[in-house]
Amino acid sequence: MVVNRVLEVTLVELGRVGLERLSVPEVAERAGVNKTSVYRRWPTKQHLVKAALQQSMEATTRPPETGALGSDLASLASSLAEFITSPTGLGIVRTVMADGDSAEAKALTATMWRGPARDLPRAALEQAISRGELKPDTDVELLLFTVAGAIMHRVFIERARVDDAWLKRLVKLLSEGAGKKPGRHHARSM
Amino acid sequence: MVVNRVLEVTLVELGRVGLERLSVPEVAERAGVNKTSVYRRWPTKQHLVKAALQQSMEATTRPPETGALGSDLASLASSLAEFITSPTGLGIVRTVMADGDSAEAKALTATMWRGPARDLPRAALEQAISRGELKPDTDVELLLFTVAGAIMHRVFIERARVDDAWLKRLVKLLSEGAGKKPGRHHARSM
Repeated sequence: MVVNRVLEVTLVELGRVGLERLSVPEVAERAGVNKTSVYRRWPTKQHLVKAALQQSMEATTRPPETGALGSDLASLASSLAEFITSPTGLGIVRTVMADGDSAEAKALTATMWRGPARDLPRAALEQAISRGELKPDTDVELLLFTVAGAIMHRVFIERARVDDAWLKRLVKLLSEGAGKKPGRHHARSM
Repeated sequence: MVVNRVLEVTLVELGRVGLERLSVPEVAERAGVNKTSVYRRWPTKQHLVKAALQQSMEATTRPPETGALGSDLASLASSLAEFITSPTGLGIVRTVMADGDSAEAKALTATMWRGPARDLPRAALEQAISRGELKPDTDVELLLFTVAGAIMHRVFIERARVDDAWLKRLVKLLSEGAGKKPGRHHARSM
């Protein structure tokens, strides 16, 4: 059985019909394999969807290797944006949001940030800390999630393109902050 | 006809059945008014939903008045969080995400950031600029949308609570930034 083919079809189906209506026999048929082979490897729909989602997150998460904070953050953001705006990514996020309260959707969401999808960007940010580009006390997870959230808002609410100019603005905000540093007030009003 | 009652029922229905299945006669019945009165004021479902959404955003958007950047941003974020996590807010965001590609959903999303819902927080951030607490070149809209996105991620993907401790961390990240200032490298390695 071609594992990748089955996982790919699962993602397409997830985007097409949503988590609730996704049918394992239908996936098997579309992938051209026997449904018992599918069930042998993934005992439940939940297992199958989890595997498909994890593989898809891994495939689209590239370890940033630029070695410069601005471009590392931008590269992180752009690989996240690529995932969220891909047909399967869109389908997954929509499914998760629409079926928000079901146990299945909850488990699915929990999967999104597991494994390499979380570890690679985390590692990149931690390297940026050791290089002295990020503050030592940086809240790496919050930074990562804020990038992801800003992209979700851009794609789903603003419905605007995630392009280089926008990524640059986001990276600037997150690395430099919007607040004026107290230290800059050294010229006392006189 | 009690306008507020109709708009309130519209929001509840929106959260319950979603935009596509929302029925104006059903809203009228649940609000205890004649459907012709509803249609007289809001000629289409689109008009009705728009009005309901706008009113709800206005009601939950409080102008921050603390006069201190950290607490202004936190107060902004907490009023956004309050909206997004309310039953109607949840319903609206889910509807918008699930019906993402329909013309109706697009128009609905466009409404979210119109009027006072956008103007009040914007004004607060612009005041923070004039008080010298935010950098003069602050990208106010991006800052606002990033706060909203971070909250969306927190609520829908992390499924964690938006509490004061988390708001404080978010405000710190957005006001101070995660990057180390080049100016801090004054002690050259020697």
